[in-house]
Amino acid sequence: MKLGVCYYPEHWPEAWWDEDARAMVAMGLSVVRIGEFAWSRIEPEPGAFDWGWLDRALDTLHRHGLQVVLGTPTATPPKWLVDADPSMLAVDYHRHVRGFGSRRHYCFSSESYRDQCTRIVTALAERYGNHPAVVAWQTDNEYGCHATTLSYSAGAVRRFRRWLAARYGDIAALNAAWGNVFWSQEYRSFDEIDAPNLTVTEANPAHRLDYQRFASDEVASFNRLQVEILRAASPGRDIIHNFMGFVTDFDHNDVAADLDVASWDSYPLGFTEQFWFDDDCKARYLRQGHPDIAGFHHDLYRGVGRGRWWVMEQQPGPVNWARSNPAPLPGMVRAWSWEAFAHGAEVVSYFRWRQLPFGQEAMHAGLTLPDRSTDVGGVEAAQVAREIAQLGPLPAASRAEVALVFGYPSVWMSEIQPQGRDLSALRAAFEMYTALRRLGLDVDIVAPGADLAGYRLIAVPMLLDADAALATKLAASGAQILIGPRSGSKTRDFQIPAALAPGALQALLPLAVTRVESLRRGASVGVSIDGVAHGVTRWREWVRTDLTPRARFADGGGAWFSHGKAHYLAGWPEPAMLRTVLRALTEAAGIATTDMADGVRWRRRGGLCLAINYAAEHRPAHAPAGAKFVLGGPDLPPAGIAAWRLA
Amino acid sequence: MKLGVCYYPEHWPEAWWDEDARAMVAMGLSVVRIGEFAWSRIEPEPGAFDWGWLDRALDTLHRHGLQVVLGTPTATPPKWLVDADPSMLAVDYHRHVRGFGSRRHYCFSSESYRDQCTRIVTALAERYGNHPAVVAWQTDNEYGCHATTLSYSAGAVRRFRRWLAARYGDIAALNAAWGNVFWSQEYRSFDEIDAPNLTVTEANPAHRLDYQRFASDEVASFNRLQVEILRAASPGRDIIHNFMGFVTDFDHNDVAADLDVASWDSYPLGFTEQFWFDDDCKARYLRQGHPDIAGFHHDLYRGVGRGRWWVMEQQPGPVNWARSNPAPLPGMVRAWSWEAFAHGAEVVSYFRWRQLPFGQEAMHAGLTLPDRSTDVGGVEAAQVAREIAQLGPLPAASRAEVALVFGYPSVWMSEIQPQGRDLSALRAAFEMYTALRRLGLDVDIVAPGADLAGYRLIAVPMLLDADAALATKLAASGAQILIGPRSGSKTRDFQIPAALAPGALQALLPLAVTRVESLRRGASVGVSIDGVAHGVTRWREWVRTDLTPRARFADGGGAWFSHGKAHYLAGWPEPAMLRTVLRALTEAAGIATTDMADGVRWRRRGGLCLAINYAAEHRPAHAPAGAKFVLGGPDLPPAGIAAWRLA
Amino acid sequence: MKLGVCYYPEHWPEAWWDEDARAMVAMGLSVVRIGEFAWSRIEPEPGAFDWGWLDRALDTLHRHGLQVVLGTPTATPPKWLVDADPSMLAVDYHRHVRGFGSRRHYCFSSESYRDQCTRIVTALAERYGNHPAVVAWQTDNEYGCHATTLSYSAGAVRRFRRWLAARYGDIAALNAAWGNVFWSQEYRSFDEIDAPNLTVTEANPAHRLDYQRFASDEVASFNRLQVEILRAASPGRDIIHNFMGFVTDFDHNDVAADLDVASWDSYPLGFTEQFWFDDDCKARYLRQGHPDIAGFHHDLYRGVGRGRWWVMEQQPGPVNWARSNPAPLPGMVRAWSWEAFAHGAEVVSYFRWRQLPFGQEAMHAGLTLPDRSTDVGGVEAAQVAREIAQLGPLPAASRAEVALVFGYPSVWMSEIQPQGRDLSALRAAFEMYTALRRLGLDVDIVAPGADLAGYRLIAVPMLLDADAALATKLAASGAQILIGPRSGSKTRDFQIPAALAPGALQALLPLAVTRVESLRRGASVGVSIDGVAHGVTRWREWVRTDLTPRARFADGGGAWFSHGKAHYLAGWPEPAMLRTVLRALTEAAGIATTDMADGVRWRRRGGLCLAINYAAEHRPAHAPAGAKFVLGGPDLPPAGIAAWRLA
Ligand SMILES: [Zn+2]
Ligand SMILES: [Zn+2]
Ligand SMILES: [Zn+2]
Repeated sequence: MKLGVCYYPEHWPEAWWDEDARAMVAMGLSVVRIGEFAWSRIEPEPGAFDWGWLDRALDTLHRHGLQVVLGTPTATPPKWLVDADPSMLAVDYHRHVRGFGSRRHYCFSSESYRDQCTRIVTALAERYGNHPAVVAWQTDNEYGCHATTLSYSAGAVRRFRRWLAARYGDIAALNAAWGNVFWSQEYRSFDEIDAPNLTVTEANPAHRLDYQRFASDEVASFNRLQVEILRAASPGRDIIHNFMGFVTDFDHNDVAADLDVASWDSYPLGFTEQFWFDDDCKARYLRQGHPDIAGFHHDLYRGVGRGRWWVMEQQPGPVNWARSNPAPLPGMVRAWSWEAFAHGAEVVSYFRWRQLPFGQEAMHAGLTLPDRSTDVGGVEAAQVAREIAQLGPLPAASRAEVALVFGYPSVWMSEIQPQGRDLSALRAAFEMYTALRRLGLDVDIVAPGADLAGYRLIAVPMLLDADAALATKLAASGAQILIGPRSGSKTRDFQIPAALAPGALQALLPLAVTRVESLRRGASVGVSIDGVAHGVTRWREWVRTDLTPRARFADGGGAWFSHGKAHYLAGWPEPAMLRTVLRALTEAAGIATTDMADGVRWRRRGGLCLAINYAAEHRPAHAPAGAKFVLGGPDLPPAGIAAWRLA
Repeated sequence: MKLGVCYYPEHWPEAWWDEDARAMVAMGLSVVRIGEFAWSRIEPEPGAFDWGWLDRALDTLHRHGLQVVLGTPTATPPKWLVDADPSMLAVDYHRHVRGFGSRRHYCFSSESYRDQCTRIVTALAERYGNHPAVVAWQTDNEYGCHATTLSYSAGAVRRFRRWLAARYGDIAALNAAWGNVFWSQEYRSFDEIDAPNLTVTEANPAHRLDYQRFASDEVASFNRLQVEILRAASPGRDIIHNFMGFVTDFDHNDVAADLDVASWDSYPLGFTEQFWFDDDCKARYLRQGHPDIAGFHHDLYRGVGRGRWWVMEQQPGPVNWARSNPAPLPGMVRAWSWEAFAHGAEVVSYFRWRQLPFGQEAMHAGLTLPDRSTDVGGVEAAQVAREIAQLGPLPAASRAEVALVFGYPSVWMSEIQPQGRDLSALRAAFEMYTALRRLGLDVDIVAPGADLAGYRLIAVPMLLDADAALATKLAASGAQILIGPRSGSKTRDFQIPAALAPGALQALLPLAVTRVESLRRGASVGVSIDGVAHGVTRWREWVRTDLTPRARFADGGGAWFSHGKAHYLAGWPEPAMLRTVLRALTEAAGIATTDMADGVRWRRRGGLCLAINYAAEHRPAHAPAGAKFVLGGPDLPPAGIAAWRLA
Repeated sequence: MKLGVCYYPEHWPEAWWDEDARAMVAMGLSVVRIGEFAWSRIEPEPGAFDWGWLDRALDTLHRHGLQVVLGTPTATPPKWLVDADPSMLAVDYHRHVRGFGSRRHYCFSSESYRDQCTRIVTALAERYGNHPAVVAWQTDNEYGCHATTLSYSAGAVRRFRRWLAARYGDIAALNAAWGNVFWSQEYRSFDEIDAPNLTVTEANPAHRLDYQRFASDEVASFNRLQVEILRAASPGRDIIHNFMGFVTDFDHNDVAADLDVASWDSYPLGFTEQFWFDDDCKARYLRQGHPDIAGFHHDLYRGVGRGRWWVMEQQPGPVNWARSNPAPLPGMVRAWSWEAFAHGAEVVSYFRWRQLPFGQEAMHAGLTLPDRSTDVGGVEAAQVAREIAQLGPLPAASRAEVALVFGYPSVWMSEIQPQGRDLSALRAAFEMYTALRRLGLDVDIVAPGADLAGYRLIAVPMLLDADAALATKLAASGAQILIGPRSGSKTRDFQIPAALAPGALQALLPLAVTRVESLRRGASVGVSIDGVAHGVTRWREWVRTDLTPRARFADGGGAWFSHGKAHYLAGWPEPAMLRTVLRALTEAAGIATTDMADGVRWRRRGGLCLAINYAAEHRPAHAPAGAKFVLGGPDLPPAGIAAWRLA
């Protein structure tokens, strides 16, 4: 449980560095990330390295006892490099070259750019691989951010064809897998295949899915190139990447397989404003962010990082990039920090040390102000540091009783072929997560390939490509299993299973989905459960089965089927219905639940329970009578937190 | 009155074909459309035809007594053809080439592609022109769908210049017609003229109108090329094209002039979701579709087809291409089928036989499911087949007493120069149609050039280019004539008539429109009719005339003018006002009307009256007391139908 | 106080010209603008001039005593010129060439096009520079309209690099000014710099700001080229440009520095529909336009023109270019005319003489109709002419007591880096202007560099780049000074000032802005002033100061600070709060205010006060008891005006 900060010595007079380091220590920070955008300073002219300033910066930080995460600067190749090789630039859907002048202006498939990355990372690793301040490396920065996973360059198409040839072996297999007989889309050789952009109407979904898989693999192999260099030249250091919240364009598990630690960048207010939440929700959580944004990602990246994860960038105040950028509620930076530690973060690192007076992020807050005074975020970070010291080491987070199965390819499938609006597999997973945490539960978000043994409740909210291996593990788990609609509705080739959805999951429930419909905003279909009126929105299915439905739609169709410990929802439930279903399942599984007040969330860590209030008004912590509080008390003010020892 | 289905033998194992054909017959289907996207299977390599599978498919269908409509595959040229001649691809407004990977990826103006079409159609026609199963041909598929009528390719510009030279003879005539003196847009030769895309602000509307006319002519000549081959090689077969609902980018009358039968593709739910209907309407008719979508097109294509028309593709369940895709109400597929027959359809053919597990349309329902079981649509189709048999042959549809004059170029004009929102000539025609059918009337939708003799009421809702020939026919018709705003407001050169609007229609009413205004959503101008408050929305005109208005706007201006049997509306009426006006005119014309309950529609066919309930609740059929029902009864359930013999 | 009209003799039969001129005189018009789009008629073939028609047109107008403003035709180069040199075309953000076929299809940076302009303007000036009818010249037409200030052509980039080299001298200075160390955006030479388009995410705001400054300078130098030719060849004539309302892409002061008279094109209904006003406002002022659109621009261009300004184009009826185009209320054209004269316009010139039957503007009303009859606008223009004659010469407008400081670069900054929505510096200035005029005040809108001596209240609504020179002038003015949020928040290099915002304005108030936030629509922060509940929307700041706030936010932070005569608002006030603050300041300044009824505006001119009612209902003129009316009376009907002598 360490606090850290992102720092850019190259942005500030060298005369300030020593005082900066001292102030970081005084604030209680111990980890500093540097270097990840500094290529033009490290190599101002082709081949001419300037290490001096970075040597001095590292030495300064080291002198103050700060531990350094050193970033590779490959997200920002300098202009001279771009001019020397314009083919390295990414190309957008409309075939416009995405040029220099911001960041992430490279195509993952550019082999010449990969050579350049090898060169700069090798130079960095050789120089600092054994520097005593360096405890970890960050590869690149926020892969996929600014919609950069997909590129439609000539180089990408070339490598896509090779990737396809490796995957399918011969073109007939590809034509069969993609169903290219439809609309005469058949190819005679891999060399005839283009990227799926600029088609007259929608491209073949299987074509798009493979392009996304290919692009995801490109990200992973691009990252692996750096990891291999760093691992060889910098033994004993953790290798980390900072994933961006809500970016799902590539499979984070594949990238993280090469890493030691997963980390993510947590901007709850910006995400609340930019994502799917409705206006009411955005207004209610204006200065706190939706209460599950942080938790969802924490639990996701704990899985992605195989237990080891950080928050590499924590929002410290208003950001600059959302449509509107409110200030967090006083205390919110502290609350976010504790939410992260409650979920098991090793490090929470704030972005950034000091607000910058220039550049694209000049309006992004830091822990300190451009005039070197301390900002609100800095005050709250210092408070967190004091509280950490006061609490002493916490027990390790224990495994949750509830698992939520989430897979990136399923998100791609749901977005490539949405069939309706407002219900991607990502959003479905998020809404399931909210329902679980509204019941006071801890959740592990796990990949479809994860070990599921030991869980007592497993939710599969919307896993389109659920396969036989997963079905087998689910059946063997002994857990209550809740399967949401669309799960198992597609094969790996993006085809409808021969025996219809839920495909391989039919091993758990003897039913077949014969029809689906998507519903416009405002439309719903009523469902009655034990006499209470509920409903589904956005998605509804018709099921053929001999099972007697446990709940029915208003038109008599089955809405909720149970077979042993397996349960299937034939529509996307409204929140109250979802909680009703989950209450029944947790009861069956012997899991205790608590109906949390709106805006309150719990998270246990070992013998400690932490409660956070995301509401803008006072809320109860829901602590049991006689709870021994180590932080706060039974009443939570806005942005308030409380922690007590579990009995 | 036959039922048919669209079938793709190439999508399914050959071992299934015989059973498929048997099941079609068992379901009561007798017509099967095949082949229209199968180019890559017919000619897998350049010049190497594979007829075997198609021979066997035709023979299988024939063996079961099924009649085949064979489609030409020109909507989906294979990749090898595109690679050999990329110039055949269409180019969009932004000069992006619209590539391979879906369908309709060709430019109508590509002469090399026309050669390819000649080649493949000739080959098909020679092989199957006299096949006993083949009763009809379909040319291409859904011309104009996916915004493919207009292409901005170099080839299109070349042919546009030739087209202009032929139309205008010399450049001075074009400059005068287009008013090119405005903004120095004058040309010195036809070779200086480009397509009207990527201009700094809006292009000259006359330039755009001629480009649209040219593009429309290109569709017609493209189609004619195929018709001539088929007519020569396949005597005695009907030649058909399947027009797409709500596509008005080219003049369907010009294409149909070369056809034997017009047909259209009817997807009431998708159209309701995608088109202009407001949220209330979309919610109310979620699972039924707007009650006039099917009828409007039926009556339109009966005119386009000079009496002969089919529904080539009938929605059988949820589709995949709208923003949201609900399932039809139980019974709705049956109701749509009967609505078509009531309007005089020769064939109603469902799309498609079986839902496909792959490709862009995998989420589109069929009559049967991917696992070969029967879906809801199949059950309802079988019911329709039984009902047809039970009813026996119906009398031919008699001519309606009411004509609605609708012209494609007028739609183009209203969209090229909208002046305001939400009121294209298409929408105006549709709203007029709704008002007429809410009064229980049968309607013929006719082209401006059609014979108007014998009608008792003729509505000209918004015909911008109404000309002297039409005025003469209207005057001679003896009918009550209702002329809506904007009618006659433009000459064929898209100019304001010298004596102002309604131009040539001034022969019917001595008035001139001196000013028009368009009104934003929510704005209206009150109109009082016989003491009842009405109003116009979206469009209002000021008229100079000696006539005393029959109704006035709140500010005293005339809103409704009558002169003999001719009536003019100086604004776009709200629905209730339009019905009030129509009631007065029908009374004057001696036409009986019935105020239909919301969602109920009648259509007479010979001595039979059919009533359909599009409401989601029960509704009265409005049948006269003592009506002899041959289908249903006086109470219509949701999606219910009733039919009775007229006295 | 003259009335004028825009006339296009080339659009009409020569036989009509004499009668047109006679009718203009009869209507009371004395000024006629011609020629500004007539290049293709002046030079129908390269180098072959046709002066005859223009000679005769000028002679006809002259014969009737009409004074002519002759326009240079450079906004509409003919097709032959474009074909001969396609490099003259502008290029859009996506690198699409903006082609021929409408107007303004040139790149300001094209040196070859500048040569062509020199050639045609010289030819015009030599022929007509001393023509007795010509009293003024108009350069080009509506610079910047249709988003034409910025072009991303190769030529523009070439000149941008030269411009940067001139501005910064060496590349290190540019790198420092732009903060290019951020994200490795550093350049090694000016030749490495591109235009800021097609970047992966937002471009460097300083890069964008300099591109905008460069583009603004290009407009000014393009205009200067013409001015220099005209001034030399046509002595004694005024040189004018007609700026377009709400276009702020270039600095109008820089262009006007070379002109004798500023003029603007006033389309209140179109602007109301197209700009930021909410739906309620658009509905309420549907046929009148927002009551401050005309006044704001009048007061702006009086400053831009250093006291001399015209309305070159006055809306005479419905226009054609907004989403919806309603007709003005009867009397509104007259009211707009008088509002202009009340603010000091020398000429109000209507656009256009006659509605055109063809071309892009065929649906745009004129003073007369295509059939040569007089339209409503013509009737009202004649009324204005009679009223001018009846009133006799008016006293010159006296200087206002209130100044509003407005700068174009500040608008660019606020739009390049908005941080939140709905609050550009333009909109803030407009809302401040509304608040002042709701209090019955006359306002001078002045550039930051203007002389501020003598004003009693100076408002600086949102001047991001307020500098030390302005601070000094403000301090020396002796006026009450109201400074709005974001003012002084940026240096000229678009950096946050070293001592934080309000930067140089800290000379007036000892405070520093430590944090800002933007708020989504619907969100506000309460402010209590003297016990009355107010609020800020869209923008709120946190301030560090020893001053005691004069009003506080609900959370205790200061919302309104005063220090001597200087006042600072730490948020964007709701209208009622802004008026409350202004009432306090005007009282302190000894300025009398009047709470105007909604929709009523006053403007004094010398000893006359004019009142205009923009409401659609009757309103009081607020004239003092016993006022001597020279126009109208104490009750204002809709669109009514009244004028009385001030005591
Ligand atoms: Zn693009
Ligand atoms: Zn495009
Ligand atoms: Zn483009």
